[in-house]
Amino acid sequence: MNGQPLTSELARLVHSSLPEQQEEAMRAARFGLIDYLASGFYARDDAGVAKLWRIVEAEGGSADVPVVGQGRKASFLKSALLNGFIGHALDFDDVHSDVRGHPSTVILPALLAAAAAHRPSAERLLAAYAVGVETMARLGRTIGAAHYEKGWHNTYTLGVIAAAVAAGYLAGMSAERLEKAIGFAATQSSGMRIQFGTEAKPLHAGLAAQAALLSIRLAEEDFGGTRTGLDGDIGFFGLYGDRAAAEERLLAGWGSDWSIVRPGLWFKIYPFCSAAHHAADAALRLHQSGAFLREEVERVCILFPPKGDAALIERNPSTGEQGRFSVEYVVALALSGYPLTLEHFTNRPIGPQLLAFLPKIERQYDGGIEPAAQAVPKGRFTIVEVVTKNGDTYRERVDCPRGAPGNALTLDDLQAKLQASVPDDPARARQLVRTIMNMQSADDLQMLLTLI
Amino acid sequence: MNGQPLTSELARLVHSSLPEQQEEAMRAARFGLIDYLASGFYARDDAGVAKLWRIVEAEGGSADVPVVGQGRKASFLKSALLNGFIGHALDFDDVHSDVRGHPSTVILPALLAAAAAHRPSAERLLAAYAVGVETMARLGRTIGAAHYEKGWHNTYTLGVIAAAVAAGYLAGMSAERLEKAIGFAATQSSGMRIQFGTEAKPLHAGLAAQAALLSIRLAEEDFGGTRTGLDGDIGFFGLYGDRAAAEERLLAGWGSDWSIVRPGLWFKIYPFCSAAHHAADAALRLHQSGAFLREEVERVCILFPPKGDAALIERNPSTGEQGRFSVEYVVALALSGYPLTLEHFTNRPIGPQLLAFLPKIERQYDGGIEPAAQAVPKGRFTIVEVVTKNGDTYRERVDCPRGAPGNALTLDDLQAKLQASVPDDPARARQLVRTIMNMQSADDLQMLLTLI
Repeated sequence: MNGQPLTSELARLVHSSLPEQQEEAMRAARFGLIDYLASGFYARDDAGVAKLWRIVEAEGGSADVPVVGQGRKASFLKSALLNGFIGHALDFDDVHSDVRGHPSTVILPALLAAAAAHRPSAERLLAAYAVGVETMARLGRTIGAAHYEKGWHNTYTLGVIAAAVAAGYLAGMSAERLEKAIGFAATQSSGMRIQFGTEAKPLHAGLAAQAALLSIRLAEEDFGGTRTGLDGDIGFFGLYGDRAAAEERLLAGWGSDWSIVRPGLWFKIYPFCSAAHHAADAALRLHQSGAFLREEVERVCILFPPKGDAALIERNPSTGEQGRFSVEYVVALALSGYPLTLEHFTNRPIGPQLLAFLPKIERQYDGGIEPAAQAVPKGRFTIVEVVTKNGDTYRERVDCPRGAPGNALTLDDLQAKLQASVPDDPARARQLVRTIMNMQSADDLQMLLTLI
Repeated sequence: MNGQPLTSELARLVHSSLPEQQEEAMRAARFGLIDYLASGFYARDDAGVAKLWRIVEAEGGSADVPVVGQGRKASFLKSALLNGFIGHALDFDDVHSDVRGHPSTVILPALLAAAAAHRPSAERLLAAYAVGVETMARLGRTIGAAHYEKGWHNTYTLGVIAAAVAAGYLAGMSAERLEKAIGFAATQSSGMRIQFGTEAKPLHAGLAAQAALLSIRLAEEDFGGTRTGLDGDIGFFGLYGDRAAAEERLLAGWGSDWSIVRPGLWFKIYPFCSAAHHAADAALRLHQSGAFLREEVERVCILFPPKGDAALIERNPSTGEQGRFSVEYVVALALSGYPLTLEHFTNRPIGPQLLAFLPKIERQYDGGIEPAAQAVPKGRFTIVEVVTKNGDTYRERVDCPRGAPGNALTLDDLQAKLQASVPDDPARARQLVRTIMNMQSADDLQMLLTLI
């Protein structure tokens, strides 16, 4: 490696970042905040939230930071555990293709707690969010595809560092302290994909956000730690993945553009793993074509590029919750004419008709098919092919599903998602959107905190 | 892999363990508890402890579990963060060669909290400690040397799982819940050796203990999580190390003997990294021989087997704290006639005379030297060779340093260590030793909690 260590150079770039000078980045951050809150409100009565509250209550502690959709507060660190879990509980929150994971449900819980503690301007919070997404996207590009494929859950492994950077930036932390905060976060980086399909997956987001805040507190207390946590053979990249070209991927061009804008966040219109959204769009089109009835389906082939289905670990789900990671279940639902809405992705058992449909569906892989230029994520596509009992074949291919960058949701779409998440209180959804789209000052931000 | 998944088989074996039937194991556990408390009392005024308290106090919370040497209590989870840090703050606590790390400073903080919550008998606590050490030793044997060498800090990565298993065993948790607790712990497994030589290293012990207890609480609340966290390509062993022969190394012969007895815990007589203890013994012998004066030393060679010095990451320490991981500093102290006591391993700068001595000392490696049968750790030795200005050469070789299994400390040695850790209160040390060596009942254990 030439020049400065990665860690110190990243800290320096973060410290001097000015994303608020790019209006597009601020607007993208406002969109992301709306989507995070919608995803969280949807989950406000989730059973896992109640379990986490019991653990938090037994610990006791101060009530400083609002917890999304709960009408109550928790301590600085514990609020992040809860808000991270809540945002990701239904897997309805945004993803980012460079991250190969969920940025906002780790970064924003850390920032909400830091906002309650430091009372920055709303602009500063949005800027910190853009800096966090930028960090997480660049960590993802640097660490490489093998990291995720090996079994790591990027939302946790990368999110903890990104959220620490974002919260440190919000607090105006010096570059020297940011270096240590990065090291404290990196040394708490964990999370295994083997937990996908269980409540532990969204818990990872909460654990990452909480660990990020602890990293910031340790740095504020001048606790001793490495200032080169990302560097060298035994630093973060050496240990967790690939550090070839790390300098270029992590640092080059920082601040000339913002990853929260390009490629941008992917807001979900379906409450399941984004890797199944291409197949969902394709299967819905096939169903809506009216060309065949479910009973006429002989078999279904779902075609991916090699490893394009790594996140979809459930081939034989027995509950809707497991179905969030089953492309078979999603396609079975769509071809059966069910809407792809939340009530089909709970912890209730999957009905017998759908279970009987699953064995007709198989996955295939083809490395020879040319990905589309606009594909999201890069190199991805999904083809759903239905063969009917009388031998007819129907195919649909999707390269960039609805909600993904290039096929993005509008503010109206996001407002509709937020309204659906608080169906009993449409005024609240409207007030939240108005507040988020217009907030600038510290007072505006404190007002937002009273609404979540 | 044949038969049951590793995770469920481990949980079943843990659940049915009866180490209290082996008197040697119980006695070794009593020794380990004395040594952990001594190591913690030594650190009671450590600056890092005060920093952690400020973070804990800002969070607020209940006061349920005593914190070693502090005369005050913290909440269930936070007590483990503090007690883990305190036990390891000076790197004076026990190590275990199978673990290649520090078992007691992760396992015992988790058990002290679980003891305050569940009020088990003292025998149950000691048995749970033996089960935790057994688990951690077997995890270490299974994951292989490459795990540590790659950059992981085994105290954290393996400790979090072992402490969760121990605390779950103490609480009488079912095998099914233990399976999930193992998964919750494994997915929080982290810790990078790049933090060695900073306060973050002992913090790892606290983070591991705290994460272990959270894992237990999640399992108690029936939070959803994988029951096969150790298994398969993307499970713990697949992701963090080697799973070849995992079944044999992790499970075979469980309960026929206890790793807390054979090979046993290594209690330190020097407050620095155990990988430098061989060299310390050798250098002290050379100094005590009186064959040469420091001023006559031309150069010193410290000879290891290849990678035998991986933990000793500081070649040019500038403070005594960094010197805990510098074999050069340890040898320089010993050859200069300084006692290898705590006051030389604080965060104060190293004096000019010692600094000037360091460049005379070099490390060498020889893979051709036959390790001794009694070597601890297996395959390890250190040879210190002094060449004087007039060309004389003096060598000492150590295979099993003082305090290591095979050259173990006695109860009197441990009592002396405990007494030195509370020099102002010899009665307390005596009472602690008496209590620990005799405790059986739940009341005995609650009495102990009032003394720490």
